[in-house]
Amino acid sequence: MSVRVALFGTKFMGKAHSQAYRSVNMFFPEAPRVEMKVIVGRDPEQTKEAANAYGWEEASTDWRAVMHRKDIDLVDICTPGDWHDPMVLEAAKAKKHIVCEKPLGNTLEEAMRMAAAVSEAGVRHFLMHNYRRVPAVTLAKKLIDEGRLGRIFHFRARYLQDWAMSPELQMLWRFDKNLAGSGALGDLGSHIIDLAHYLCDDITEVSSAMATYIKERPAVPGSEEKKPVTVDDAVVMCVRFANGALGTLEATRFALGRKNHNAFEINGSKGSLSFDLENLNNLDFLSADDNDDVEGFRRIIACSKGKHPYADHWWADGHILGYEHSFTHSVNDFLTALASGGEVHPDFEDGLKNQKVLHAVEKASRSGRWEQVV
Amino acid sequence: MSVRVALFGTKFMGKAHSQAYRSVNMFFPEAPRVEMKVIVGRDPEQTKEAANAYGWEEASTDWRAVMHRKDIDLVDICTPGDWHDPMVLEAAKAKKHIVCEKPLGNTLEEAMRMAAAVSEAGVRHFLMHNYRRVPAVTLAKKLIDEGRLGRIFHFRARYLQDWAMSPELQMLWRFDKNLAGSGALGDLGSHIIDLAHYLCDDITEVSSAMATYIKERPAVPGSEEKKPVTVDDAVVMCVRFANGALGTLEATRFALGRKNHNAFEINGSKGSLSFDLENLNNLDFLSADDNDDVEGFRRIIACSKGKHPYADHWWADGHILGYEHSFTHSVNDFLTALASGGEVHPDFEDGLKNQKVLHAVEKASRSGRWEQVV
Amino acid sequence: MSVRVALFGTKFMGKAHSQAYRSVNMFFPEAPRVEMKVIVGRDPEQTKEAANAYGWEEASTDWRAVMHRKDIDLVDICTPGDWHDPMVLEAAKAKKHIVCEKPLGNTLEEAMRMAAAVSEAGVRHFLMHNYRRVPAVTLAKKLIDEGRLGRIFHFRARYLQDWAMSPELQMLWRFDKNLAGSGALGDLGSHIIDLAHYLCDDITEVSSAMATYIKERPAVPGSEEKKPVTVDDAVVMCVRFANGALGTLEATRFALGRKNHNAFEINGSKGSLSFDLENLNNLDFLSADDNDDVEGFRRIIACSKGKHPYADHWWADGHILGYEHSFTHSVNDFLTALASGGEVHPDFEDGLKNQKVLHAVEKASRSGRWEQVV
Amino acid sequence: MSVRVALFGTKFMGKAHSQAYRSVNMFFPEAPRVEMKVIVGRDPEQTKEAANAYGWEEASTDWRAVMHRKDIDLVDICTPGDWHDPMVLEAAKAKKHIVCEKPLGNTLEEAMRMAAAVSEAGVRHFLMHNYRRVPAVTLAKKLIDEGRLGRIFHFRARYLQDWAMSPELQMLWRFDKNLAGSGALGDLGSHIIDLAHYLCDDITEVSSAMATYIKERPAVPGSEEKKPVTVDDAVVMCVRFANGALGTLEATRFALGRKNHNAFEINGSKGSLSFDLENLNNLDFLSADDNDDVEGFRRIIACSKGKHPYADHWWADGHILGYEHSFTHSVNDFLTALASGGEVHPDFEDGLKNQKVLHAVEKASRSGRWEQVV
Repeated sequence: MSVRVALFGTKFMGKAHSQAYRSVNMFFPEAPRVEMKVIVGRDPEQTKEAANAYGWEEASTDWRAVMHRKDIDLVDICTPGDWHDPMVLEAAKAKKHIVCEKPLGNTLEEAMRMAAAVSEAGVRHFLMHNYRRVPAVTLAKKLIDEGRLGRIFHFRARYLQDWAMSPELQMLWRFDKNLAGSGALGDLGSHIIDLAHYLCDDITEVSSAMATYIKERPAVPGSEEKKPVTVDDAVVMCVRFANGALGTLEATRFALGRKNHNAFEINGSKGSLSFDLENLNNLDFLSADDNDDVEGFRRIIACSKGKHPYADHWWADGHILGYEHSFTHSVNDFLTALASGGEVHPDFEDGLKNQKVLHAVEKASRSGRWEQVV
Repeated sequence: MSVRVALFGTKFMGKAHSQAYRSVNMFFPEAPRVEMKVIVGRDPEQTKEAANAYGWEEASTDWRAVMHRKDIDLVDICTPGDWHDPMVLEAAKAKKHIVCEKPLGNTLEEAMRMAAAVSEAGVRHFLMHNYRRVPAVTLAKKLIDEGRLGRIFHFRARYLQDWAMSPELQMLWRFDKNLAGSGALGDLGSHIIDLAHYLCDDITEVSSAMATYIKERPAVPGSEEKKPVTVDDAVVMCVRFANGALGTLEATRFALGRKNHNAFEINGSKGSLSFDLENLNNLDFLSADDNDDVEGFRRIIACSKGKHPYADHWWADGHILGYEHSFTHSVNDFLTALASGGEVHPDFEDGLKNQKVLHAVEKASRSGRWEQVV
Repeated sequence: MSVRVALFGTKFMGKAHSQAYRSVNMFFPEAPRVEMKVIVGRDPEQTKEAANAYGWEEASTDWRAVMHRKDIDLVDICTPGDWHDPMVLEAAKAKKHIVCEKPLGNTLEEAMRMAAAVSEAGVRHFLMHNYRRVPAVTLAKKLIDEGRLGRIFHFRARYLQDWAMSPELQMLWRFDKNLAGSGALGDLGSHIIDLAHYLCDDITEVSSAMATYIKERPAVPGSEEKKPVTVDDAVVMCVRFANGALGTLEATRFALGRKNHNAFEINGSKGSLSFDLENLNNLDFLSADDNDDVEGFRRIIACSKGKHPYADHWWADGHILGYEHSFTHSVNDFLTALASGGEVHPDFEDGLKNQKVLHAVEKASRSGRWEQVV
Repeated sequence: MSVRVALFGTKFMGKAHSQAYRSVNMFFPEAPRVEMKVIVGRDPEQTKEAANAYGWEEASTDWRAVMHRKDIDLVDICTPGDWHDPMVLEAAKAKKHIVCEKPLGNTLEEAMRMAAAVSEAGVRHFLMHNYRRVPAVTLAKKLIDEGRLGRIFHFRARYLQDWAMSPELQMLWRFDKNLAGSGALGDLGSHIIDLAHYLCDDITEVSSAMATYIKERPAVPGSEEKKPVTVDDAVVMCVRFANGALGTLEATRFALGRKNHNAFEINGSKGSLSFDLENLNNLDFLSADDNDDVEGFRRIIACSKGKHPYADHWWADGHILGYEHSFTHSVNDFLTALASGGEVHPDFEDGLKNQKVLHAVEKASRSGRWEQVV
């Protein structure tokens, strides 16, 4: 089987997804064969360069036309959030399978519309919460599913970055609610909400507070003209899970020195887990089955062949993987599911569930109350 | 100057405070000379043994009589929480200086009454939040006060233990609201609230959720008879600080593998700090003043002479201190303030402020709303 | 400029180098354009599969013929050690530029012959000690070259693995002195010797001991027939450097739980550095320039744009890299040097110097004396 | 039973041993009762102050007279190394039990003479290698004795400090071979040699190199007059053990940023261990019995009641201990052995064995050969 791909977006995510499509057949030879047909961007010159550099056969600036090309099976959307809705709707209309960057929409309404559209169209859909497929995280899921944590009491997660702390940093699309939907919440918070859903259970209720520490920013670098920041720089949440666990979640762009610190800890009746994306090959696990005298958090280097998810496809034991490999794993699993017809998550339904939490968090931050996720 | 001490309580805290009084003059020869006059307990035999082992001149079971002895200057209360109020009131009446274990009271009303009593009596008072005087924490305070963190955006803290996880563990005073006031909240949460006040700012508003995972416990070990647990096993909080910072705080006795994990991280505009009581000699500090190419959290071993708080009084550089030393430092600082008439914190006013937060947290957990700390 | 490459070897290293050639133009668009012409292996079927999977235009089993093809500029040798010598000599004869896996030869004589051959042929040569181009290691070099460590007193390194510990593991080429030259010494020790040369100075004198813990192994998996292991499982060394520093080096395949633990620490008069390949994005650095009260090893996450080597070519700050990226960096730097005519290291002269140390280590282990590196 | 103690030396070790004698009966009530009779120093005023501060009944400057006092059972020698020999010989003559600081002597001859003297006198003797009784180290020993490491292949240890790096630091007794015997070797190296003997096996053969980086130092602080440093600043060793294991050992006072970094790693066929004195409550242990998918070094917090050595005598689980507690444990174990007549190590025989290694290391550093330990 061969899958012909069109990718929309040439920047950070466009590059990361491209690398996944380039690499998947080399490391996962059983996956369907990828044909990298066309990359779509706004600027003709830049898009052509991206096509050359990343290995796409063609470059295009006409996104709508590409959506309807007959030689395309799969559409991958890596644009800012405000483009997800129109593109997904068009792709569904064209009966293409869809990969979309997270969060699914900029609003709950958009997310509901997109989830409905793909369902009605009968196409396959996948939301790129790539961190589920960091091997250490996939291993965490395995341990939990096998009951090795027992009943879960606590899920605590934080996603900390610091790139937005300078007041001199200019207005970007990520600071504009119309383009990005929200700030740290949607960008970072949606990732840890996805991990909470994946590893713990559905979030049923939330309380929160949000802050915007820098209220306006230069319109362009160095300019005197200021534009208002309309999203959150930081958000804190307490959450309740369907299984009775309590959670604390936090996402911020104002944690000096934390570059990509997406960290969680889970405490269960039989085991505990701890993870940090800045050392993404490690998973710390404590088991109540340990002999009493040697109980402790063990640091697993989650890349040993025959032991750890995806490891058989890469290098020798302990030869660690990087950030980008989570995209390769995601693309492999989605392509494989396309071929087999099997299930694959997170899909747009998972994305919609996530968006309901994002929605409830914003609501709770305004109401000053715990809000149900509905 | 010499200070004659009576100590109330023979168990964990009684032993820890005793070790502080035994040691303080050896390591802090400038401190007033301690006379360990009398230890008071309920069981005559056990109290006598404690007196012998810990080095008290006498043992007594008559707490009220001891309070009024003329040869006592300082009263130290290490009993369960329900005894703080009557003992403090009696000690104030007797015009004794008072050291008291935390939290100050089992209720806000008690705490207010105690704070008023010591104030009216004109005696000195000190609340044993000993973690302020772990050298790494004192160093953190110094860095903050010197402006090396800049404006603080985030304070996140967790105090995780796991000793209460077995359903076979019997009913203890710590599980009884009448005796303990609250569970993880007062026992552990009050410590991190104190650190939040010490290191960040006043907490002005809280949201929270509490859980009791094991609802009843054997009346005595192994018994079929069960008694209801009337306190929380775990509590999660979002908080707002007077300085605009956002906080997440969590205290639990159900975090498998975490023994005494009292950890905080603070993110400011110029620096970040991270600490964990399980490695209490370390403080991790990141400074925006670092050269760009070597920015990173540096692990300070906070026991070098001439560099770190209290270090001149102990061993050679890097020869680490333990849990108990925080009590010795606390006792030294309080005794020194007694002699000099200088200020010393945390006192009962700090304890009252802490209790107001505990009160608001319980209220918020019932109301489902953010609650003001008043 | 375009460089036409032939690669020899289809296994672990063949795959790793292939990934580098596939990726270099995407992430380093300024590098000469790579044409992946042909991959050469012993098994026709397997080689064809490798060509398809890795992206080589052709597969071949005739290594000598490929060496002389006119449409090849660069030859990359990823075979077991016993093939380096004949292949390098042939490639030099054919006036091809050469990349070769480490160590350069199986014996000092081979290494001398190869170094002489490339020098006489006037071709460019590069030895794949890829760890020099792990960004954290390149950063270490930069700090040292800028004088931020001052005079170096100590270099200690260990390369620990555990894959050879099972007596049931069969005889492999890596256990056969005729094929591999040596065991842990050449495989792992040569890497840390290269880092010692790169980061500290020339090794002038060595003392050592070697051990073979498992003396014979099954001829094939599960077989009763045994074959003698003729290489070392482990080697320990004390070394002296030209700059007066003292070193301890150790390489072993018998360190249970250590998968790819290539770790070093360097202590100088102004700074210290510590690194571990199992967390290859981190470099720990302590500077005597730190303020006294916050001196400590800081953990640098060595992948921030504008701050760290190679980082501008990859993802966002703190989005970590993996093992394979060191090959991409190596290939980029060699290709760039080809284009510019500039210097690039490690070359075969560096490889020869390394081999002299390997030779002295084996000699010292037999003589029981310190031996000069000559 | 009661033991009447005289202690010789008032400085760092005198204070540390004093604290042990002060504390042992409080935390180990089963131990014989200590009577702190007299402390002996050179300066009358200073010795009196020490007596007061540390809790000794008397102060004396007449060491020889005190040795022969009838009311003394146990003599504890905390002086510089050159005083060990005359004091031990006198104490043995007086039939006192003896605790002595390490290393036993300044020369092999002295150590042999002292070991013979105590043996002939029939008194009990103990060498204060206190690190054996850091609970995590005692736990390591237990795991090894129970076979949980299997056959040991590797022992690597380093003891790194940095206090001697400033050329302005004046001449101290520790820099004078006549007073100290050797430098980093005897001061730090003897500790890791003791741990090697304790945890691995007898060292049978050594190779080494020593360096003195600063050859002369100010006679007194700030003075122009210089005195020659006659000891080593650093020493590196390769060693062979009786059980076939290979070792690397290193001791230095020139490892910038390392304050008290006494660290070892042991690799066996069934398990590996790692320890660092700067976090002395932790022991890292990897077991081959772990499930394959969760194998990893687990970080044990070695202070949980019912699980770890000495923990029952201290605070609650995870309430960590410090440097000084190792002395309290040592004193308890020696006093207990005095009372019971049972064995206790390390004694002077262990000290003599250690001294033979020190001797062989110095010899090897001069000869440039591997030297037998005889």
